[in-house]
Amino acid sequence: MASWLQIPKNSPFSLANIPFGIISTAKAASRVPAIAIGDYALNLNAFASSGGFAQLPSFEPHLNVFDQPTLNAFAALGRPVHRQVREYIQSIFRADTPFPQILKDNASLQQEALLPLSEVTNHLPMQIGDYTDFYAGLNHAYTLGVLLRGPDNALQPNYKHLPVAYHGRASSIVPSGTPIHRPNGQILANPTAVPKVPTFTTCKRLDIELELAAFVSRPNELGQPVSVQEAEDHIFGVVLMNDWSARDIQAWEYVPLGPFNAKNWATTISPWVVLLDALEPFRTASLEPENNQNVLPYLREKRADNVFDIPLEFELTNEGGKPTTISRSNAKNLIFSFPQMLAHHTITGCNLRTGDLLGSGTISGPEPGMEGSLIEQTKGKNPIQLADGSDRIFLEDGDTVILRGKAGTEGNYVGFGDCVGKILAAPQLNFD
Amino acid sequence: MASWLQIPKNSPFSLANIPFGIISTAKAASRVPAIAIGDYALNLNAFASSGGFAQLPSFEPHLNVFDQPTLNAFAALGRPVHRQVREYIQSIFRADTPFPQILKDNASLQQEALLPLSEVTNHLPMQIGDYTDFYAGLNHAYTLGVLLRGPDNALQPNYKHLPVAYHGRASSIVPSGTPIHRPNGQILANPTAVPKVPTFTTCKRLDIELELAAFVSRPNELGQPVSVQEAEDHIFGVVLMNDWSARDIQAWEYVPLGPFNAKNWATTISPWVVLLDALEPFRTASLEPENNQNVLPYLREKRADNVFDIPLEFELTNEGGKPTTISRSNAKNLIFSFPQMLAHHTITGCNLRTGDLLGSGTISGPEPGMEGSLIEQTKGKNPIQLADGSDRIFLEDGDTVILRGKAGTEGNYVGFGDCVGKILAAPQLNFD
Repeated sequence: MASWLQIPKNSPFSLANIPFGIISTAKAASRVPAIAIGDYALNLNAFASSGGFAQLPSFEPHLNVFDQPTLNAFAALGRPVHRQVREYIQSIFRADTPFPQILKDNASLQQEALLPLSEVTNHLPMQIGDYTDFYAGLNHAYTLGVLLRGPDNALQPNYKHLPVAYHGRASSIVPSGTPIHRPNGQILANPTAVPKVPTFTTCKRLDIELELAAFVSRPNELGQPVSVQEAEDHIFGVVLMNDWSARDIQAWEYVPLGPFNAKNWATTISPWVVLLDALEPFRTASLEPENNQNVLPYLREKRADNVFDIPLEFELTNEGGKPTTISRSNAKNLIFSFPQMLAHHTITGCNLRTGDLLGSGTISGPEPGMEGSLIEQTKGKNPIQLADGSDRIFLEDGDTVILRGKAGTEGNYVGFGDCVGKILAAPQLNFD
Repeated sequence: MASWLQIPKNSPFSLANIPFGIISTAKAASRVPAIAIGDYALNLNAFASSGGFAQLPSFEPHLNVFDQPTLNAFAALGRPVHRQVREYIQSIFRADTPFPQILKDNASLQQEALLPLSEVTNHLPMQIGDYTDFYAGLNHAYTLGVLLRGPDNALQPNYKHLPVAYHGRASSIVPSGTPIHRPNGQILANPTAVPKVPTFTTCKRLDIELELAAFVSRPNELGQPVSVQEAEDHIFGVVLMNDWSARDIQAWEYVPLGPFNAKNWATTISPWVVLLDALEPFRTASLEPENNQNVLPYLREKRADNVFDIPLEFELTNEGGKPTTISRSNAKNLIFSFPQMLAHHTITGCNLRTGDLLGSGTISGPEPGMEGSLIEQTKGKNPIQLADGSDRIFLEDGDTVILRGKAGTEGNYVGFGDCVGKILAAPQLNFD
C-alpha cells in the first residue's frame, strides 16, 4: 500500500498500521488523540474539526471522541467503528486516495494537523482503571521455575490450566520516555541466615520484563462473564510493556500473596496503540496449541491462530556507551491468548472497564538470546557483555532500556515504536 | 455533645462522628456529597448552595468540592480542611450552636437539605484509582497459616517485618447493599489425585473477610516515598470492608502470584467515610507494640497508639431466617497501622492517588468467636449453628452478611453504618 506521504521503509508506522495515541506539542499543551504514520502524527482533534471525516458520515455523530485527553471514548465505540476509522484514515493517506481534497491537496490542514513526531510529546493513551498482569509466557515461567525449584517442578500444577495472573499497580504506569527511579526496599541479604532478618537498601537486582499488553474497549457488567469467543471484541489494541521488576525485593516479599513492592513503582508502555485489525495478518498458533483442547471449555478458543507473530527485542545502552541488543524474542511465545486471559479474568463475574490493561507476562523465546528478562539470561550471576566491553547482570543507574517490536516486511511494518526507560538513582531517604 | 436534632442514642452517627458519603434520592438522581447524623443525611451540595458555610469563610473558595459526584475533591484538600469542616458542621448541629440561623432555625433549609436516611441511596464515596489489600491482621494470618502449614510455620518469615499486601481489583468494589453474585471458576475438587486436574464449578467455599479500609487524601508523586510519621496526613478516613473470598478458587490458583479470581468479583464497603479525627479518641496500641521497634526504621512510628479500638462484628441471616451474630472482633487486632501500610506501599516510590483504598487485612481477635472469616471459625469443616437451627460452614445463596463497627459509648457512638451484601446464585453459563 503506497502513500502520497513519504514514509521511511523501516518505519513501524507504515500505512498498514495506523496506531492511535495521545499527544501534545510545545505550542498546544492540551492532550489530543492522534495516529502515527511514518515520521508524522496526525492530530485527530484538528483533523476532525476541519472536516477531515466529511467522507465518513457514519462517524459524524462521534467526532467528540477526538476532543478528549484519552482514547477511552473512542475505544468504547467498539471494534466495528475502530475498523471503519482506521480504514478511512488509510484511504486518506493512500497514493490513490479517493478523497485528495481532504488532506493530500489540502496544504493548510497538513500544516495544522500533520506534525513531525520529533515535535510531539506522547502521553498515556488511555485512562487505566485496573491493570492486570498475566504470566502466559511459558518459556519465561519455565526458566524462572527452574531457577527457583529445579526442572522437575518448574511449572506449578495450575500453570497450563489457567492463565495465571495478579493485579498490578495502575497508578505507576508511565508512557515511554519517563525516567525510572530505582526503588528502595526490604531485601534478605543473607537468605540462609537464621533467623531471616531483612535489610533496607536500594534495589540491587533491577530487571526488565518484555511484554505485550492489551487495552480493553467494550466493558462488561459486574456478574456477567465474557465468553472466550466474544472476548476479542472487547479488546481495543496492543502496546509493548516493560514490567520493571526488583528481583531482590520480590524474593523476600512475594510469599504468600504475590509480588507487590517489587513491581509497584513503575511500568512503562509504548505510546501508540496498535489496533487488533492491524495485527490480523500476523496471526499464528500459540505455543502448545494442543493445550487449547486440554483446558476447561470456558477457555477453549475455536480459532487456533490466537496469538501474533511479532518479532520483539530489547536493547540496553549504558551511560556514555553504545546500544547492545540483549535479546530477540517473538510475541507468539505465549501459551494463552488475550481472549483467553480476558475470558478467565471475567469468568467469576469480574467487570472490566474501557481502558483496563492486560499484560501478557514476560515473552521469552525457547533458545538462549531470546530471554525477555535479564534474570533469565544471566541466571542472576553470568554477566552479559555490552558493546563497549562493560558487563551487566542486572541494570545499573544511567542504563537506558528500549523494547521494540514490529511485524511484517519493509515498507509495510506494523510496529509499536520504542518503549524507553532510563534508570535514575534511588532517592536518598532519611529516617530521623 | 448534645444536638438540637433528635439523634437516637444507639446511632453510629452521633454528633461525635460526622462521616462523609455520596448520596442520591428518588427525587434528585444526581450524586452529591453528604454527611450522616442520626437518622438523617445532610446534603452538602444543597447546604453549601444555600449559604450553609457562611460562617466558615476560609472554606468559601472550596465550596465547589460539594458540587461533585465523589468526595475526591474534598479529600484532596487535606486534613486541616477536613477537620475545620467537620468541626464547623458539629457546631451547626450542637444544641448550643452559635449559628442557629444557618440550620437550627432555618426550616426551609432543613426541608431542602436534611433528608431521612431511609430515603437516600448511598453510592461509592470515592472514585477509587487503585485498591491495595494488606494482611496486617496477625490472628487471621496465624490461624490461616496453621490450617495451611501447621503451627510451626504458620507465619512466613517476612510477616512481622513488613505489612504483606497484594494489589486488589478496584472495578468490583461496590457500596453496601449491592447484591453479590456467587462466582464460577476453576477448583481442584480432588487435591490428592495425580495429575492435578481442575474442574469448573460454582464456588463452594464462599467466605467473607472483615476488614477496615482507609481512603487516601493527599497524593504523593511517583518516586517520592511518604515517611511513616507523615503518612497519617495522607489518609482521609476509614470504612468497613468485606473482602468476599472464594476459598476453593483461591487454593488452586494462588501459587505463585497470589489471589486473583478468588477475590476479583466483589468487595463491599460501608457507605460513610469516618474521618481520622473522629477516630482520634479511640487510639490504642497495635498487637505486639514492641514490633514497632523491631521493624526497619522506615516503618517505625513514634506514636505507640497507632491503631483504633473499635468493636467490630459480623452477622449472617439466612433467607427467611433470623440474624445470627457469627463473631465479634476489634479493629485493634492489627500488627501494622495504616500509616505503616502507607509508608511501606510508597517506600519504592509508588505513587498513591486521592481516592486509593488500603484494606487492613482480615481483623480477627485472639479467641474463638472473634474470627473475621468463616474459614477461621469453621476450619472449613465444623458447622456454625444459626439462630433458626440451620448451620453453615461457608455461605449459601440467599444469605445476607452484615459487618458492623462502632466505637465509643451510648449517645456518642462513632460508627460506620452497616456493610451489607446478599449472596445471589452464580450465573448459569453455556460454553457451546
